[in-house]
Amino acid sequence: MVILTLNCGSSSAKYQVYDWDSKDVLAVGIVERVTLGGSFISHNAKGKPEYTLKHDCPNHTEAVDLIIKTLTDPEHGVIHDMNVIKAVGHRVLHGGDRFTKSVVVDAAALKVFDEVRDLGPLHIPANIMGIEAAQKVLPNVPHCAVMDTAWHQTMPPESFLYAVPYEWYEKYSVRRYGFHGTSFLYTAKRASVLLGKDPYKTNLIIAHLGNGSSINAVKNGCSFDTSMGLTPLEGLVMGTRSGDCDPAMPFYVMRKTGMTADEMESALNKKSGLLGLTGKYTDRRDIQAAVEQGDEQARLAQDIEAYRVRKYIGSYIAALGSIDALVLTAGVGEFAFFMRKKILEGLQPLGIIYDPKKNELARTRNAETCISAPESKIPIFIIPTDEELVMTEDAFALMAGTYDVHTNFTYSFQSRDYVNKGRAEGLKKDLEKKPGLASIIAEPK
Amino acid sequence: MVILTLNCGSSSAKYQVYDWDSKDVLAVGIVERVTLGGSFISHNAKGKPEYTLKHDCPNHTEAVDLIIKTLTDPEHGVIHDMNVIKAVGHRVLHGGDRFTKSVVVDAAALKVFDEVRDLGPLHIPANIMGIEAAQKVLPNVPHCAVMDTAWHQTMPPESFLYAVPYEWYEKYSVRRYGFHGTSFLYTAKRASVLLGKDPYKTNLIIAHLGNGSSINAVKNGCSFDTSMGLTPLEGLVMGTRSGDCDPAMPFYVMRKTGMTADEMESALNKKSGLLGLTGKYTDRRDIQAAVEQGDEQARLAQDIEAYRVRKYIGSYIAALGSIDALVLTAGVGEFAFFMRKKILEGLQPLGIIYDPKKNELARTRNAETCISAPESKIPIFIIPTDEELVMTEDAFALMAGTYDVHTNFTYSFQSRDYVNKGRAEGLKKDLEKKPGLASIIAEPK
Repeated sequence: MVILTLNCGSSSAKYQVYDWDSKDVLAVGIVERVTLGGSFISHNAKGKPEYTLKHDCPNHTEAVDLIIKTLTDPEHGVIHDMNVIKAVGHRVLHGGDRFTKSVVVDAAALKVFDEVRDLGPLHIPANIMGIEAAQKVLPNVPHCAVMDTAWHQTMPPESFLYAVPYEWYEKYSVRRYGFHGTSFLYTAKRASVLLGKDPYKTNLIIAHLGNGSSINAVKNGCSFDTSMGLTPLEGLVMGTRSGDCDPAMPFYVMRKTGMTADEMESALNKKSGLLGLTGKYTDRRDIQAAVEQGDEQARLAQDIEAYRVRKYIGSYIAALGSIDALVLTAGVGEFAFFMRKKILEGLQPLGIIYDPKKNELARTRNAETCISAPESKIPIFIIPTDEELVMTEDAFALMAGTYDVHTNFTYSFQSRDYVNKGRAEGLKKDLEKKPGLASIIAEPK
Repeated sequence: MVILTLNCGSSSAKYQVYDWDSKDVLAVGIVERVTLGGSFISHNAKGKPEYTLKHDCPNHTEAVDLIIKTLTDPEHGVIHDMNVIKAVGHRVLHGGDRFTKSVVVDAAALKVFDEVRDLGPLHIPANIMGIEAAQKVLPNVPHCAVMDTAWHQTMPPESFLYAVPYEWYEKYSVRRYGFHGTSFLYTAKRASVLLGKDPYKTNLIIAHLGNGSSINAVKNGCSFDTSMGLTPLEGLVMGTRSGDCDPAMPFYVMRKTGMTADEMESALNKKSGLLGLTGKYTDRRDIQAAVEQGDEQARLAQDIEAYRVRKYIGSYIAALGSIDALVLTAGVGEFAFFMRKKILEGLQPLGIIYDPKKNELARTRNAETCISAPESKIPIFIIPTDEELVMTEDAFALMAGTYDVHTNFTYSFQSRDYVNKGRAEGLKKDLEKKPGLASIIAEPK
């Protein structure tokens, strides 16, 4: 039995095919430039060479068709017949405050997504189109929506309310929602396993640092506060998003420049963050390379990004009282040791002490590592995230009728013996290249 | 010799008359409803009953005239002749990034204030009108501008830069400026005296909590970071200002409601904060009274206000590494013990432990108190602010030619033996009413 997961962005469609019986990833891939012209699919099937095909996808229906065709292709495919797909998990950006967990998509759910369309104008229409396209191709299996916001519905009002006219909350649902919930769920559960603690007695701070970044205060295993807000613009400095700034600033710049509200919102989302500060870079590897070439503006951008993460860590320690671990995840958290160093430097008085050598070693998506020094009061874990696995398990459990909200449901990866099979081969290669890596791999306590 | 200080707001003009020789406050007062119709002056002269007079002030020139007339009035006045006034200190909201210290106002300074007018559209025009009016009445004495932003000019770029297109900083001076600088200067210097520490080796977090609120991270005696930004809208939840929120939120609400940019900016400044959350209150005493009547919405507003202060305290501990004291000041910080309790509760794991009984006792503008428990690693001081004294000393020193930036200048109140004479009488009354107060008065170490 196979579970397909789909993540349709504004101009892309990512997918993963998971064999439920062998607990293995059969294929992952992405269709890029959907709707933009010049679309192509990059397809990685287990045990086969990477495969790329140009194929125009003017819409997400075409992209989903291309994915199915590739998956069942005699040469490059991984399944003989699409009837082996028994459920589909769809990533959906925003569920408003209506969903605290994943759901089977029906007309009512689609109506809610449509209602909150304005809260994610680029992503939600693509999410909806992806679901509808997949429903056409696979009409007889459950399609499940896994929302980035669901995990955060446990936040208390003191975390989620803005200090603005209360009727904006009542009439327009203006509040903090938070995002990256699927990633936080996975890494929070894994951290509890590594700590050997009851997840519902575990306090954590989890920094999901990627092109988009957010940070999560987890109290007794549930989301308590997070840095992204009504939209993904708030919070940390990101690749192209500003994160926090004076709410009056956009209006001041609009008066000075004559920019419209739409232009301003676009500039804050697409021309700000690290791109705005450096004028050219969003990828942290490019920024680090520039720093190594003596680019002072790039160094300043790194300092600002790291300083803001550090301040959020401090604020969430104050919010939670104490934490059992600090967790870093996603591309930057998993690989950018130079950014981790900048973030962690200075947190020593708070009991968070990293080991510089361990930090340099920890660069893999294939293992969980611990980079704190022995004298650190608080362990620092690097936990590679696996949103697709959460989506797969949610879709399977919804199909099987065993699913419930995460506080009443146990994922496979919550077992002490859990092995992420899709990453075993990669880990073998990593260990061959960097034998020292073995010494920092985190094992369940 | 007498120094006059003036603080002209959008519709008010506050003043204080200080006798330099006796180091005593001769009179304080305020003209309210300037420009609005129905103006009146409330005048408190030392040793005389409070005096109120209705007098229409269609502009700040008229208000300054009324102040001078009242100060020299045979019955209610405190000086015989306005020629005894040898310098005037004017509070100015915003000096952009051009002033790191107070200055004698000349044409060049007035030009700068005019250039940054857009950064404080309500306050700066009133500041300028106040200066020009006083210059007309007192043409032969130096008029000194004491700016709220000057203290914060020591902040490093990682604190003051927003992650937005860098040209906004270069072309339009978009950055964090910070406000309440005069208050932070006074309380920072006093905290060093109470700690018995070199001010330039002292790290502090100072929360100025009033109708407007902001918080300051002080590193080695200099401002390192602060919660207000380009304008006073950013940061903590205030009486009517929202403080931090998703920068995309205003645009979302504008689309939903059809509000214009001007209407939105006004709503965030004047209809948000505690007023927005409760629908009716800005004064913390009213909110507390409502809470005691069982008003859940009022309780929630308190929780949100306190939670945000607590998070900033945590973030600034992370920013500074460690702190020598936590300082609370301004109306709410000095009197609202119920808010202090909510803020401090939960900070115990960070070494900040308050004593509930001391906290309840500490309600005075007339003495510095310490409300931390003996086992607290970090002392918690309540230091009543005295912005007028800083303005007076800056104005005197500018006149005398002895003034320099605070890192190269020593204020009278930096002495271990300093006594705030203007508050001695009030303290005597406070101690009669609440004898327990004596036990928590903070003395220099």
